[in-house]
Amino acid sequence: MNTKDPIIALATPSGMGAIAIIRLSGKGVITIANSCFKPKFGKKNLSELKSHTIHLGTIHNENNHIDEVLLSVFKNPNSYTGEDIVEINCHGSVFIQQEIIQLFLKNGLRNASPGEFTLRAFLNGKIDLSQAEAVADLIASDSKASHQIAMQQMRGGFSNEIEQLRQELLNFASLIELELDFAEEDVEFANRDDFKKLVSKISSVLKELIASFAYGNVLKNGIPVAIIGEPNVGKSTLLNALLNEEKAIVSEIAGTTRDAIEDELIIDGVAYRFIDTAGIRDTQDIIESIGIQKTFEKAAQAQVIIYLLDGSILKGKSNEQQKLVLESTQTEIQNIEIKFPDKKILIVANKTDLLSKKEISNLKSQISNLLLLSAKNKEGIIKLKNELTALANIGVLSNNQTIVSNSRHFEALSNALKEINNVQKGINNKLSSDLIAIDIREALSYLGEITGKVTTEDLLGNIFANFCIGK
Amino acid sequence: MNTKDPIIALATPSGMGAIAIIRLSGKGVITIANSCFKPKFGKKNLSELKSHTIHLGTIHNENNHIDEVLLSVFKNPNSYTGEDIVEINCHGSVFIQQEIIQLFLKNGLRNASPGEFTLRAFLNGKIDLSQAEAVADLIASDSKASHQIAMQQMRGGFSNEIEQLRQELLNFASLIELELDFAEEDVEFANRDDFKKLVSKISSVLKELIASFAYGNVLKNGIPVAIIGEPNVGKSTLLNALLNEEKAIVSEIAGTTRDAIEDELIIDGVAYRFIDTAGIRDTQDIIESIGIQKTFEKAAQAQVIIYLLDGSILKGKSNEQQKLVLESTQTEIQNIEIKFPDKKILIVANKTDLLSKKEISNLKSQISNLLLLSAKNKEGIIKLKNELTALANIGVLSNNQTIVSNSRHFEALSNALKEINNVQKGINNKLSSDLIAIDIREALSYLGEITGKVTTEDLLGNIFANFCIGK
Repeated sequence: MNTKDPIIALATPSGMGAIAIIRLSGKGVITIANSCFKPKFGKKNLSELKSHTIHLGTIHNENNHIDEVLLSVFKNPNSYTGEDIVEINCHGSVFIQQEIIQLFLKNGLRNASPGEFTLRAFLNGKIDLSQAEAVADLIASDSKASHQIAMQQMRGGFSNEIEQLRQELLNFASLIELELDFAEEDVEFANRDDFKKLVSKISSVLKELIASFAYGNVLKNGIPVAIIGEPNVGKSTLLNALLNEEKAIVSEIAGTTRDAIEDELIIDGVAYRFIDTAGIRDTQDIIESIGIQKTFEKAAQAQVIIYLLDGSILKGKSNEQQKLVLESTQTEIQNIEIKFPDKKILIVANKTDLLSKKEISNLKSQISNLLLLSAKNKEGIIKLKNELTALANIGVLSNNQTIVSNSRHFEALSNALKEINNVQKGINNKLSSDLIAIDIREALSYLGEITGKVTTEDLLGNIFANFCIGK
Repeated sequence: MNTKDPIIALATPSGMGAIAIIRLSGKGVITIANSCFKPKFGKKNLSELKSHTIHLGTIHNENNHIDEVLLSVFKNPNSYTGEDIVEINCHGSVFIQQEIIQLFLKNGLRNASPGEFTLRAFLNGKIDLSQAEAVADLIASDSKASHQIAMQQMRGGFSNEIEQLRQELLNFASLIELELDFAEEDVEFANRDDFKKLVSKISSVLKELIASFAYGNVLKNGIPVAIIGEPNVGKSTLLNALLNEEKAIVSEIAGTTRDAIEDELIIDGVAYRFIDTAGIRDTQDIIESIGIQKTFEKAAQAQVIIYLLDGSILKGKSNEQQKLVLESTQTEIQNIEIKFPDKKILIVANKTDLLSKKEISNLKSQISNLLLLSAKNKEGIIKLKNELTALANIGVLSNNQTIVSNSRHFEALSNALKEINNVQKGINNKLSSDLIAIDIREALSYLGEITGKVTTEDLLGNIFANFCIGK
């Protein structure tokens, strides 16, 4: 991997717009840009200009003027990548974007890989690995919650915390390794009491961070919600009613990095992802029961289950009949609650527009905590949204709260905790220093993976492949 | 229309990308931006910083950090609009873009209308009207030809030419108006011979510019091509074969300002727009003949007609039969040539893959200038493209050639020419100065409309409504 050669990429979304940014980074980009740029005023040489300045002029290919542009110069090391950077703000025609990129490709630059600018920022020590990952999260953020988590991570709070613990552990590690050199003399450079305190502190911080992941993952990716119920109770109508009001927001997040866009709804800054399910009912039909099995599997991935009933089943029935129907409904609800003991379940009756006041009051009295709505008439939708917010129990994050939202970090933290536990056991069992040292080294390595103190080319490849090009 | 108040818009294409630009222009934008911006290094006050400089820092809403951004400052009058401008390069998340725009809307800015930045550039004398129009054309340009025309116009060559003629005419006009003040004394301040020369020079320049419009319009909007022929001769297959190789380019221009994207193909930097037509044949059926009538109407809009034959009609026929078929084909071709005397017509035989060598040679010998191809096997497609290029007879423009491509300019130039002709007649017929003066004033007004020396709010409204937002 050549990490100094000059690269180029479009940094703004593809397509036509008022302005597009074409970004160049690496060795020689200022000189190369200078040879293709004619300033409008004066006879500037870009190499002689101050960093962080902007210049109006023309990009030309020999005698052919491609565009009038604003060109910004950033000199190393004071740039995003830590290298020389030139940014060209050109008119946002796709044709012009391509012409300019082609021009520089001819002049010795190459197309940047996804995330290559940020990779260089990491390799040049401008940011650590967890901050680099936060850049991708920030760009993909589509709700207040996911944005805040990414922003915190990018600002380095999390990395600093990890790095500080790692540094303290490293100090002890070197003292213990030193003891090994004097093994025959049976000395203890590392105070075992202080060491125990540190290990227990690290252990509790790691536990806290690991525990925050469930929450962080949900905030970042949205809370999965499954709407289940018998066929024709109005699952799709309810989903549409929920989504309709927020259609603008939903359509604007098209093109995010997720493989398939699920129906997503943002309420009070928190995203909910709705899982599509087929209708369920008691059946002897083998094929149909396979479908129902799948619905239950999908529902198992959800954190919240909306169990939707058709309220109109009571319509026009005698009191006797209503009683029977409600009893069977209660049994169904119990079955669902038994099937999903650890899910938050909302019981919702739809089609209340078809019911009389008496029938509604019967429904309410027989099924506790029942939410009534008419998806068709969009009645009761706001109340359902409020219930979702209450169930999710997620407020706005405080600026200083550290939340782990990256599954790679979660894994590294979990592994580090395992090794720290081993260290703890080792100390308690008065294991010899050389054995403890091995576990410490492992723990250090896992912690180092988070901030990128310890990396492999594979790891970097995996992380940056998920970036968009131009960042 | 308040044209000083601070405005804001996203200047990059909507959607997610590495970077987005949010642009602020107008009175107070630097102070307002300063109140929402915390520089990463030092305690800068944006108002005290030099124009054309870039600053790293955070956009914050009270204590809530929205994003780490690069903020550029442009001070009036040295900016695109001629006003103070602040550009914020933020991470390209749609959520972040919206948060930042919302923040500034709360701080007293308003959303910019389409083209409002360029409108201000015009109103503040940074560019003339024809240059402003060229900005929109430049953004919409999708071929080398349309790009070059827009670029020339934006660089002001055309406006300068018009403005110079207008200035010379204006000088004479004031001399002639002066004569009116001394009407009783029968003096001639304006030398009639010089005046005649000027008027004749203006007339010939206008004629040249008007004549360039047909060419310019085609270069800007693409050359309309209709493929016509009987049903099932392979019109769609041919169109697909033509488009297929260039699919990448075609798909990338989605989202241009045209109402409906027609099938467009760019060959050697020139765009061709293909007009969809239904099959034609001799018929007594009233409904079908209406369809054929429509095809002919559409073909009438084309500049080039590809008349497509089914070569396989000769397949396996006796010499006698082939002769009959070819005779009737010749008649059909003649009919088309009579119907469209002023079109460039290409006669093309498809499905040659089904023919023997003998049959092909029969075809060729009987129909002159026949182009043979197999759309299915993509044989002969390149030759057809070369023929199109030859017919269009359009090379690359020289940098100094002035081409009119804007229908508004065409109209103004035509009107100006009419008035100039009246002036010429007036001089020749020795009309009195006051009558000539009226025609001169009219001509001046039409010429002034092009560069925007003469405008109305309606005219400006029409022009800038077609811009994209953020420009």
